[in-house]
Amino acid sequence: MLPNQMVKSMIGKVIKVEMKGEENSLVGRLESVDDYMNLHLSNAMEYKGSEKVRALGDIVLRGNNIILIQPYED
Amino acid sequence: MLPNQMVKSMIGKVIKVEMKGEENSLVGRLESVDDYMNLHLSNAMEYKGSEKVRALGDIVLRGNNIILIQPYED
Amino acid sequence: MLPNQMVKSMIGKVIKVEMKGEENSLVGRLESVDDYMNLHLSNAMEYKGSEKVRALGDIVLRGNNIILIQPYED
Amino acid sequence: MLPNQMVKSMIGKVIKVEMKGEENSLVGRLESVDDYMNLHLSNAMEYKGSEKVRALGDIVLRGNNIILIQPYED
Amino acid sequence: MLPNQMVKSMIGKVIKVEMKGEENSLVGRLESVDDYMNLHLSNAMEYKGSEKVRALGDIVLRGNNIILIQPYED
Amino acid sequence: MLPNQMVKSMIGKVIKVEMKGEENSLVGRLESVDDYMNLHLSNAMEYKGSEKVRALGDIVLRGNNIILIQPYED
Repeated sequence: MLPNQMVKSMIGKVIKVEMKGEENSLVGRLESVDDYMNLHLSNAMEYKGSEKVRALGDIVLRGNNIILIQPYED
Repeated sequence: MLPNQMVKSMIGKVIKVEMKGEENSLVGRLESVDDYMNLHLSNAMEYKGSEKVRALGDIVLRGNNIILIQPYED
Repeated sequence: MLPNQMVKSMIGKVIKVEMKGEENSLVGRLESVDDYMNLHLSNAMEYKGSEKVRALGDIVLRGNNIILIQPYED
Repeated sequence: MLPNQMVKSMIGKVIKVEMKGEENSLVGRLESVDDYMNLHLSNAMEYKGSEKVRALGDIVLRGNNIILIQPYED
Repeated sequence: MLPNQMVKSMIGKVIKVEMKGEENSLVGRLESVDDYMNLHLSNAMEYKGSEKVRALGDIVLRGNNIILIQPYED
Repeated sequence: MLPNQMVKSMIGKVIKVEMKGEENSLVGRLESVDDYMNLHLSNAMEYKGSEKVRALGDIVLRGNNIILIQPYED
């Protein structure tokens, strides 16, 4: 399974994303992903380590600034 | 709805954008977006957290340096 | 008007550009722009906030490292 | 052997990856790689120097934010 | 004259280049440039402000990490 | 000679590479390079200034995160 297919397989599930140059990570339900790995997350939360910092709601993340994507386990 | 379509659905509305390597965020009315997620915002304001820092008027933001886009609720 | 057309509409006018990872901004007359938002500015000046730091003359700025472009009002 | 072929030759093996702007490195079994060097690693671990920091499980790494890939020898 | 043509017009001349995330700038004779603004400079010198730090000889600079290019006047 | 051809001409020779956001540089024998300037180096060493820090063996470097490539003279 190619990396992009791996990400697509997580649609509908909660994922954790680390963005370039950001200390905090983002956790939310993956609504969609395109070929550039741009992501649409719903019910997104900003986390500092394991602590919730802010509720963000719907967010779009720019694919080329993503460092790491992983399934999220609470 | 793919990430780019999600952004296009916000045209005419006020959005908040976080740019790479910038501490402050930008809030403005989304006038247009292209396939690279380059954005044209009008009546843009720079925010430091929830505090207005500067009025910027019309601005163009380069898509590949965007971290996060979200609908803005005052 | 798409973001790139917005930038093209500023040709011949003075613009202000913020570059990624640079504290200072650049102000100059926009001579040309291409599809990657690479810019050619003439009579460019480097500004630290509202203070002129250096005269740079003709400069070429790489589009993918641009954060923000706006019309400049003295 | 071109760089991308060199990476493909490591599929099924444990590799170490350094990402842009991240102090720690990532070690895991390379499951797949695409033409952009996006990577899927399984059983990934985060390392600070030679010390294990966190188990990450399955992760996807964005190719354009990779600095360096090397075979991992425990 | 488009930005890339402006750079091409400097072939054979001494230019100054600022790279992303680098405090020092690079000065050298522009030997060649391609469509990505990758540059080949000969007799390159590293400058910290107006002070020479190191002689580098022939160097290749990656276009997408260029911030600014300008003609160099000693 | 275009920048990419300049790099290709160094295949089989020892080169020094500076990567974005990395303080240290990498020195190794250039095995291959592709159109994105992704590099495969063998017998790579990490240098802090002129001091060897670590032996890295075979490494792949992502082209878009390269700042500077030069022939290495011991």
